[in-house]
Amino acid sequence: MKKSQTYNVIGKAELRNDGAEKVTGKALYTVDVDLPGMAHGKILRSPYAHARLLRVDGSKAEQLPGVFAVVTREDQKRLRMFGAAYKDQTIVAVDKVRYAGDPVAAVAAVDEATAMQALELIEVEYEELPMVTSIDEALADNAPLVHDASAIGGELMGQRYEAPKEFSGTNLCYRFSYANGDVEAGFKKAEHIFENTFTFPRVQHFSMEPHATVAHYEGDRITLWAGTQEPFTLREHLADIFHLPQSKIRVIVPYVGGGYGGKLAVKTEPLAAVLSWKAKRPVRLAHTIEESFKTVTRHPARVRIKTGVSKDGKLLARQCVIHMETGAYADAGPRVTQKAGYRCFGPYRIPHMKTDAYTVYTNTVPAGAYRGFGTLQVTWAYESQMDIIAEKLGYDPLDFRIKNLLKKGDLYTPGDTPVDCDLKAGLMQAAEEIGWKQKITQPNRARGLAVCMKDGGGTYKVSSAAVKMNADGSVVLLTGTVEVGQGARTALSQVVAEELGIAFDAVTVAQLDTEITPYDVNTNASSSMVVMGLSVQRAAQDLKRQILRHAAKVLKTKAEQLQMAGGKIVGPKNLSMSFVELMQKIFLSRAGELVGHGAYQSLKSPKAALGSPTNFWEIAWGAAEVEVDRDTGEIKLLKYVSLADVGRAIHPVMCEGQDEGGVMNAIGHSLMEEMIYKDGQLLNPNLVDYRVPSFNSLPKDFETILVESHNGPGPFGAKGTGEGGLMPVAAAIGNAVYRATGLRMYDLPLTPEKVWRGLGKISQDL
Amino acid sequence: MKKSQTYNVIGKAELRNDGAEKVTGKALYTVDVDLPGMAHGKILRSPYAHARLLRVDGSKAEQLPGVFAVVTREDQKRLRMFGAAYKDQTIVAVDKVRYAGDPVAAVAAVDEATAMQALELIEVEYEELPMVTSIDEALADNAPLVHDASAIGGELMGQRYEAPKEFSGTNLCYRFSYANGDVEAGFKKAEHIFENTFTFPRVQHFSMEPHATVAHYEGDRITLWAGTQEPFTLREHLADIFHLPQSKIRVIVPYVGGGYGGKLAVKTEPLAAVLSWKAKRPVRLAHTIEESFKTVTRHPARVRIKTGVSKDGKLLARQCVIHMETGAYADAGPRVTQKAGYRCFGPYRIPHMKTDAYTVYTNTVPAGAYRGFGTLQVTWAYESQMDIIAEKLGYDPLDFRIKNLLKKGDLYTPGDTPVDCDLKAGLMQAAEEIGWKQKITQPNRARGLAVCMKDGGGTYKVSSAAVKMNADGSVVLLTGTVEVGQGARTALSQVVAEELGIAFDAVTVAQLDTEITPYDVNTNASSSMVVMGLSVQRAAQDLKRQILRHAAKVLKTKAEQLQMAGGKIVGPKNLSMSFVELMQKIFLSRAGELVGHGAYQSLKSPKAALGSPTNFWEIAWGAAEVEVDRDTGEIKLLKYVSLADVGRAIHPVMCEGQDEGGVMNAIGHSLMEEMIYKDGQLLNPNLVDYRVPSFNSLPKDFETILVESHNGPGPFGAKGTGEGGLMPVAAAIGNAVYRATGLRMYDLPLTPEKVWRGLGKISQDL
Repeated sequence: MKKSQTYNVIGKAELRNDGAEKVTGKALYTVDVDLPGMAHGKILRSPYAHARLLRVDGSKAEQLPGVFAVVTREDQKRLRMFGAAYKDQTIVAVDKVRYAGDPVAAVAAVDEATAMQALELIEVEYEELPMVTSIDEALADNAPLVHDASAIGGELMGQRYEAPKEFSGTNLCYRFSYANGDVEAGFKKAEHIFENTFTFPRVQHFSMEPHATVAHYEGDRITLWAGTQEPFTLREHLADIFHLPQSKIRVIVPYVGGGYGGKLAVKTEPLAAVLSWKAKRPVRLAHTIEESFKTVTRHPARVRIKTGVSKDGKLLARQCVIHMETGAYADAGPRVTQKAGYRCFGPYRIPHMKTDAYTVYTNTVPAGAYRGFGTLQVTWAYESQMDIIAEKLGYDPLDFRIKNLLKKGDLYTPGDTPVDCDLKAGLMQAAEEIGWKQKITQPNRARGLAVCMKDGGGTYKVSSAAVKMNADGSVVLLTGTVEVGQGARTALSQVVAEELGIAFDAVTVAQLDTEITPYDVNTNASSSMVVMGLSVQRAAQDLKRQILRHAAKVLKTKAEQLQMAGGKIVGPKNLSMSFVELMQKIFLSRAGELVGHGAYQSLKSPKAALGSPTNFWEIAWGAAEVEVDRDTGEIKLLKYVSLADVGRAIHPVMCEGQDEGGVMNAIGHSLMEEMIYKDGQLLNPNLVDYRVPSFNSLPKDFETILVESHNGPGPFGAKGTGEGGLMPVAAAIGNAVYRATGLRMYDLPLTPEKVWRGLGKISQDL
Repeated sequence: MKKSQTYNVIGKAELRNDGAEKVTGKALYTVDVDLPGMAHGKILRSPYAHARLLRVDGSKAEQLPGVFAVVTREDQKRLRMFGAAYKDQTIVAVDKVRYAGDPVAAVAAVDEATAMQALELIEVEYEELPMVTSIDEALADNAPLVHDASAIGGELMGQRYEAPKEFSGTNLCYRFSYANGDVEAGFKKAEHIFENTFTFPRVQHFSMEPHATVAHYEGDRITLWAGTQEPFTLREHLADIFHLPQSKIRVIVPYVGGGYGGKLAVKTEPLAAVLSWKAKRPVRLAHTIEESFKTVTRHPARVRIKTGVSKDGKLLARQCVIHMETGAYADAGPRVTQKAGYRCFGPYRIPHMKTDAYTVYTNTVPAGAYRGFGTLQVTWAYESQMDIIAEKLGYDPLDFRIKNLLKKGDLYTPGDTPVDCDLKAGLMQAAEEIGWKQKITQPNRARGLAVCMKDGGGTYKVSSAAVKMNADGSVVLLTGTVEVGQGARTALSQVVAEELGIAFDAVTVAQLDTEITPYDVNTNASSSMVVMGLSVQRAAQDLKRQILRHAAKVLKTKAEQLQMAGGKIVGPKNLSMSFVELMQKIFLSRAGELVGHGAYQSLKSPKAALGSPTNFWEIAWGAAEVEVDRDTGEIKLLKYVSLADVGRAIHPVMCEGQDEGGVMNAIGHSLMEEMIYKDGQLLNPNLVDYRVPSFNSLPKDFETILVESHNGPGPFGAKGTGEGGLMPVAAAIGNAVYRATGLRMYDLPLTPEKVWRGLGKISQDL
């Protein structure tokens, strides 16, 4: 642990710099953008889960007064295909539709009502095809194929990936395989072998702001206002789709009303651009909630986990076979699958490990990135199984975990970053806080624990930032990190303020515009505070060096003698100079600016499983106390304790907010959220039939504890945070339910109906 | 002269990169900006040239439906005063109005018609005051004072300037005095003394796009879309006016429909911001042509020039007393006066020189910067007088000039940059082209010559730029130079393309936005190709260095072995690599960017008259052939030859366009343009009564010759250009008129009426 230092801005709960704008309704989101002459787009979506497209005729729709453009599959002809990992998507369906909701055509009209009316005039003839809407159906022999030739491959983690040839003619499109040690030998040595299968439901991000784009395609340039988490990567996709250099595409990002991964990569932005191109005017394409449900989801998954344990309770070998259902198009599926496959061993010492993770196409909504990115599917499995093993071997779940936990400095896999946290201490604290050792007297009540780990900060990250001082000494931060509500603008401003010795509110954050903002690959993977944080810190330090060098010249002293503090330059013998004075000395008039630049880039490591060592380990501990209502099957979450290793909390209240928000998010897939399909139709794409957690869903006793070891790789020892809170929730609750009732649940969400049926089955069995 | 080099892009007439947008009407100007909820502003202007404001009551106007805000002098209370050189202006008049057109109040309403209607409901009581509307009236004993205490001072060329105390209680507000040698001793030595007085009229810039601003004042931030030539300096003014840090102000500059100096500094932008603040919505404040006439003009001037000449025709001493009429507010008046005072000696060797240049307030429209910036008033005087002297002494005007011209390397004044051009060669060429030595047989026809010089590129310039390469190898230029129609975006892109060895159209220029574009003090003084040109060139070179360094690493060679050519990296033994390949090697994935930075800053020189040596000398030669119609007094400009020393023509066609445009502009003040005042009222603020040159005004035989010595300080030996063409026009024409008719004209413009009366007077005198 670093020697304790005093900071002026770091560690303080500064007032969010986007707060006033947001609470007064003045903050501009993409849906608020309103350009002169702007048209409104609407999408015609397939009613069938799988059908051949015989005819698409937009000519009647084009005749409707107020309609500026109708986009059909004809318009795809001049475009390249696209997709986050694989290029398997088109702006609208071409030969066939692959899920109920697949875009078939689109209209730009004077207003949304006219556009909706025009959609009804588009004539489409379908020929229905047999479909697959689950992993099992998709993997069955002679299953209908979602893509006629699905073994396509694409770019993964900076590398070209070719799907195995044998996947051709199947619904598999990707496999991640990894092994360390000799798993078969490990199983042979093991005294006990446990093999379980867990499933994870299809859930939706449910951002407050559904997907929205305003596109203006003019001449050979595209300008986009987009609610996106990765404007620079979106620019790259658009450049490819439209055969344009990146320099001709400009993505401006207003505030984003929630991302959670659902606004990564490319969704309907290219369709908006084509509408604009045809309509010869800006086009706003804003989804309804239902449309966002039909755009992207989290991957439903099936995780088969087999673990070998020694007589004395040591994990010896683990093998996982994971199937991730990516829906009709791959989106980020292969990447999510890769991460799920890599993360399935948990924070434990396991000498022999093997994983095979598959991505499976089905005729459902595409699944992509979602907070946790493949982790939650596997933490649910491995932390549930840890309790199964502990019970079988007669260990307390806490003791059993401690026995097997990785130690700080241990390697998760060879070539990767060593574990950067005391896992045991955190787990002990979580147990302490939940009152693990205290006896529970009430019936149907119990506690459960879980500890989880993911490689944090993303792979092959590239980031840069600039901090500039104007002639009047005011400071502007240029960052490509998207403010999705997480408070990045605030926390990054704190880093600048601390480095420059100025007040927090003296830092202004500039509008994000890919044309001029320094490059940042994206806002995901809990990366902003480490990846962008370091870029910003280095930019501020670069600016500081310049300021002190100039000041030393003016004050006829050495730069090392000077500091920046209290909003000015100070030195020995009461030397003091304002920034304004300095700027005037440098530039001879009230003019000019000084700009500091900073950058961060992930390393390449051929030894590491993913080709690049993790930036930091995101670690989370969770402990739940539940009461199960045997009459209704309802699980009451009485208490939840979450511990998050944030390295150093740059803004403690926002860190807590991130962690609490994460837990709340996970309560959704743990207890209630699930997109229900029947006959290929999504039955509940709305807030009435699809329930997300409300404040009523939170336990009365709910606590987040920030673990600060000050040893993260980010500025001032910070780590990234924001995804950890979700990881242990399902397993902690599931383990508690088992301890309360004897019912082991394998399939999320743990709805009252499932629990009630499960409890009934136990009674029958008894 | 440098050894001749071959360039791929430099020196080529590339298609303007703003051309297609502009000719198809797609180019966005400030007047085209249309924001949601935007209101429209209109200004109530004083009908009196000078009056005390007894009452201003906007309450009835505020009641009119559709009115969002009425701004009156009450709103000035929370603001600081402002002005380009002196802070003598308010958003609306406070105690008194100082010229007919002075803003008194303003309205923001749902549309312009409603705003106009509301203006009529504003009640204003005036008490008329005696006025001064000419230099003579203003300087008379006991003249009414435009400003009750006018000796205020301000910031000039980066230095604090205090107006002399004795100016207090007069209409004088600034004096520039300079002397070199001993002018009295010089006059004593002289055989001949010539003393003449010349006047220059009030003319208006007449940009195709009148002044326009869209302001959005929200919270503590101001966003402005403005047709301005100096967004960064405008930001500085606004920060001061509104007590805000510069970081809270963002100026975005769409295309500007002509500047010519009229869109420098601060005009009605702060009024637009106050309207927005009160109206709580964006406000568009677009002037009519008449309003722009009532906003800024060129300085009318009176130049008394006294020159002593030796027996053998050598200039010995020159003394100038210059009065520049700056109207009701100083605007850039003191700075223009300083330059006029400094530039009045012309391109001649004069051992003894003295100048006193005064800025005079009157009750007329404020005068500010205008293409030439104080030069045209004095070139008219000194180049007319050169012919007067030559005739008196019996020299041919060409020979007399050659006898006295400065030589390359000579100093204009001590401490300044030596003359960087062969003045004689240019003059000989101009004479040759006009056919100086050829006899004219027709009556009333003759030729005239002039050669003029100004310090170019501005004083205390600060500039920076960035050039970035995206992951796909496409290139973006970030420059603060405003595209006012001069073609800066095109020429600067050529510099980037040449340095990087890429095609011209591979360079995209980013939107100018003070929040993120690198700092540039302004677009004026023919500075862009030298000051910004060097910043851009250095940024491109910096990028190139980075690219070659990275490429050398990848290709395992030395950076010195590599070059950038043909859009890629090449080296010996057919080494070759595309930019895309390189970027992927650097960033490990299709991500990232490389950014080169460059800057330029004028030097400080205590020895130089203006504190900073000139960046380059802008030099122009003009030769005219005219025919005077004795019956009507009309001067027919038959032929005009203009030579411009451009150092190196980056884009020859645009250089010629700049120079030809300059000549055409000067034909205006030479022959026809003049704002006429009567009883304090401007009589001709419109295109019907105020004539500007049309294509019909151009001589049939009209030629621009670019002089290229490749020795300018700018990229590839370029100098700045764009103002030179104007300088010799009036004197060349005036001298030709004299030689054709014997009529010496002292007062511009040389209208038919004035010439006819002058000719009549000569006949009478005979």
